[in-house]
Amino acid sequence: MAGADARESEYRYGRGREKARDAARVETFSDGVFGVVLTVMAVELLQSGPARESGRELPNALAHAWPSYLAYVITFAIAGQVWLTHHNLWRYVARVDQMLLVLNLFVLLFIATIPFTADLLSDNLRGGVTEQRLTAALYVGTVLGESVFVNLTWWWADRRRLLHPDLDPRLVRAIARRALLKPLLYLVAFAVVFIDPILSLCAYLLLVGFYLIGGPGDLRPSAGRTEDRSAA
Amino acid sequence: MAGADARESEYRYGRGREKARDAARVETFSDGVFGVVLTVMAVELLQSGPARESGRELPNALAHAWPSYLAYVITFAIAGQVWLTHHNLWRYVARVDQMLLVLNLFVLLFIATIPFTADLLSDNLRGGVTEQRLTAALYVGTVLGESVFVNLTWWWADRRRLLHPDLDPRLVRAIARRALLKPLLYLVAFAVVFIDPILSLCAYLLLVGFYLIGGPGDLRPSAGRTEDRSAA
Amino acid sequence: MAGADARESEYRYGRGREKARDAARVETFSDGVFGVVLTVMAVELLQSGPARESGRELPNALAHAWPSYLAYVITFAIAGQVWLTHHNLWRYVARVDQMLLVLNLFVLLFIATIPFTADLLSDNLRGGVTEQRLTAALYVGTVLGESVFVNLTWWWADRRRLLHPDLDPRLVRAIARRALLKPLLYLVAFAVVFIDPILSLCAYLLLVGFYLIGGPGDLRPSAGRTEDRSAA
Amino acid sequence: MAGADARESEYRYGRGREKARDAARVETFSDGVFGVVLTVMAVELLQSGPARESGRELPNALAHAWPSYLAYVITFAIAGQVWLTHHNLWRYVARVDQMLLVLNLFVLLFIATIPFTADLLSDNLRGGVTEQRLTAALYVGTVLGESVFVNLTWWWADRRRLLHPDLDPRLVRAIARRALLKPLLYLVAFAVVFIDPILSLCAYLLLVGFYLIGGPGDLRPSAGRTEDRSAA
Repeated sequence: MAGADARESEYRYGRGREKARDAARVETFSDGVFGVVLTVMAVELLQSGPARESGRELPNALAHAWPSYLAYVITFAIAGQVWLTHHNLWRYVARVDQMLLVLNLFVLLFIATIPFTADLLSDNLRGGVTEQRLTAALYVGTVLGESVFVNLTWWWADRRRLLHPDLDPRLVRAIARRALLKPLLYLVAFAVVFIDPILSLCAYLLLVGFYLIGGPGDLRPSAGRTEDRSAA
Repeated sequence: MAGADARESEYRYGRGREKARDAARVETFSDGVFGVVLTVMAVELLQSGPARESGRELPNALAHAWPSYLAYVITFAIAGQVWLTHHNLWRYVARVDQMLLVLNLFVLLFIATIPFTADLLSDNLRGGVTEQRLTAALYVGTVLGESVFVNLTWWWADRRRLLHPDLDPRLVRAIARRALLKPLLYLVAFAVVFIDPILSLCAYLLLVGFYLIGGPGDLRPSAGRTEDRSAA
Repeated sequence: MAGADARESEYRYGRGREKARDAARVETFSDGVFGVVLTVMAVELLQSGPARESGRELPNALAHAWPSYLAYVITFAIAGQVWLTHHNLWRYVARVDQMLLVLNLFVLLFIATIPFTADLLSDNLRGGVTEQRLTAALYVGTVLGESVFVNLTWWWADRRRLLHPDLDPRLVRAIARRALLKPLLYLVAFAVVFIDPILSLCAYLLLVGFYLIGGPGDLRPSAGRTEDRSAA
Repeated sequence: MAGADARESEYRYGRGREKARDAARVETFSDGVFGVVLTVMAVELLQSGPARESGRELPNALAHAWPSYLAYVITFAIAGQVWLTHHNLWRYVARVDQMLLVLNLFVLLFIATIPFTADLLSDNLRGGVTEQRLTAALYVGTVLGESVFVNLTWWWADRRRLLHPDLDPRLVRAIARRALLKPLLYLVAFAVVFIDPILSLCAYLLLVGFYLIGGPGDLRPSAGRTEDRSAA
């Protein structure tokens, strides 16, 4: 079997095209899951939305359904931000192994539950304190789980030399530090639930906005611009 | 950190293959959302459609459900046309940055709500004037939001030099003018709601047809034909 | 504007990579729609399926739901066969233009309604003759519409020289003849509805099986095998 | 027609780019189906989930819905593991033919029913022995059908020389043996249903875990690591 294995690695890693296809398929597959997650809340609006409520005037029914819109926007913001992070990290991944794919499946497992927990959260914003804390805890659990496995993905890809071979180690560490910061900030936002759930929700959305702005590992136009000039 | 950033741009933009994968992933991801949006109304037909209505003869039930078919066709026409625009613009995008991805997420945020607003619209075509105006306004809001962010995407990609470096600036401006025209025409079609909602809806469908025919930035066969001959 | 257009065609068609991406994106986008269509009936089984029926023993409930399983298998067979045809035709498409994309959208418009009409059909197999004929007619309408637009796609791609430039014209015509045969056979199968709806349904499934076996334009292993030997 | 066929094979297999696109499209298409299957149970949680149950306190309602969470995790684990297998096998496929695509469609036919059977299974874990055995049998039938067609896919691709031409035949056989082992192990796990359904379910999850760890044909980091060093 050892001979077969040695040859296997030769066929697998000896071709540039093969490598690119491997990592690209993981991205395509993950994008399928992201696409469903991003649209599912809009489908939910359509199916159990205000238009179906009877015994109410349409303007009132539409206005009364504000938690549904909020759940849609929250889901879209969170899932969109996670997609950005996923896109930014996987750009640097040159090869994949079995464990990296399994870690990515765990990331997707948590991402796919975001619509469910975001919907629970928005439904219970007007409820009692117990409901608010429970749903906020579930929601944070989902987002925490996702960011823990994103961190593990990056750590594993670095450890097993699956990243681009000539990637600067300092950049790898800067990305790891930034990715590690996220679950910690989420925990802080979670602690605020015990003070005020609405405040906690706002803290999350602020965090999402913060991560949309960019940092090490994100795509930045300025760096590209200089490059572009020298290439022209 | 500055050193890491400088090297980062080197790894990122120094390879042709990388660039292509970056822009291609955005297209794949967006196509996932488009695919769900295009099929969701057909799924809706299946789930809450005429076949489920009891106490009616099947031919009557099917005929009575015409607003559902209309909503399906409207959604398909609009989302299909937006997909064409998206396809035509992104063909020229060579690189992406964080902001371009965020702008694209906003485009998708509005696109994903098209089934919901198209369904509301078609449900209320037989309703009172208030319902017609409200749902038409919501619908236009969605399409307007989408086309505003499409404009911003193009403007940003041009400003940050993310387009193909040897693209003719006159073509870039011609595409920008055409893209800018669209929200203005949509606003005119919206104003017609206050005269007649059905007329307004027809104006939209005309607009969609107009944009399907083609213009600067669209794929045209004639140009390709000449090219093809010279290449042969 | 004429100058801009001339340059545009240069940027667009002057690069091999661009062409491949254009046609590839259409395939990815169409695959998103096909993916949803193939799975939607299984989701339907899950949501309104036998497990939800109350007041019945599980074995009876499962057995009683056979039209749902039939609808799933029919939808999968038809949509799978259409995907194969789509795959086989688009392999030869080297470039796209606006009209080809619009024709492809029409193909998708009809494909997305297959689950709805297949579900109607299977629900009414035990109903009266009127219901059987009406739902069979709707079903054939969908499949006919799809195959008419598939024919138009191929005819347009050939006429506008969007196919691979060195493709044998005899092969192009053989594929066109085979694609044209399909709507005719579907019409014959439809005419059988007036004799016996169940017989008509069997005729369809036979047709699908016939098209799965292969013909000109389909991928055949034997040809590849010879090629493979000469390449080795 | 024979002349047309000979030339056809020339156009089809004479270009490296074409081949890669053919196999890549099958992966993209399959990933669309996998993406929907992985997320559908999370959508199910959202739509018929505990939040919709009335007359219960939220904490109780959430706790009472544990079979739904179990169904989600089971579906995700199984479908994720099948995706991994699919990814690992298709990496070695260089070309496709009509029959390989048909076999792949059969694999997808069974995969798309996993959410339905997993849901039935988890709903009836608290039911009588008849329900437990029936739903476990259905579930195993689905997974068995899937793995039989995965085996056929590999056997056909090998027989028709559709795999990478320089792939070691010993590796091809090692992968075939491992793929063949799976339906046998599934049958054993099924036999356990007649002793204890819960034990049988645990045996499946163990099997899934076992296949996640890796074996011949899976991506392994160690082999890549050595390769990476020699390439540096």
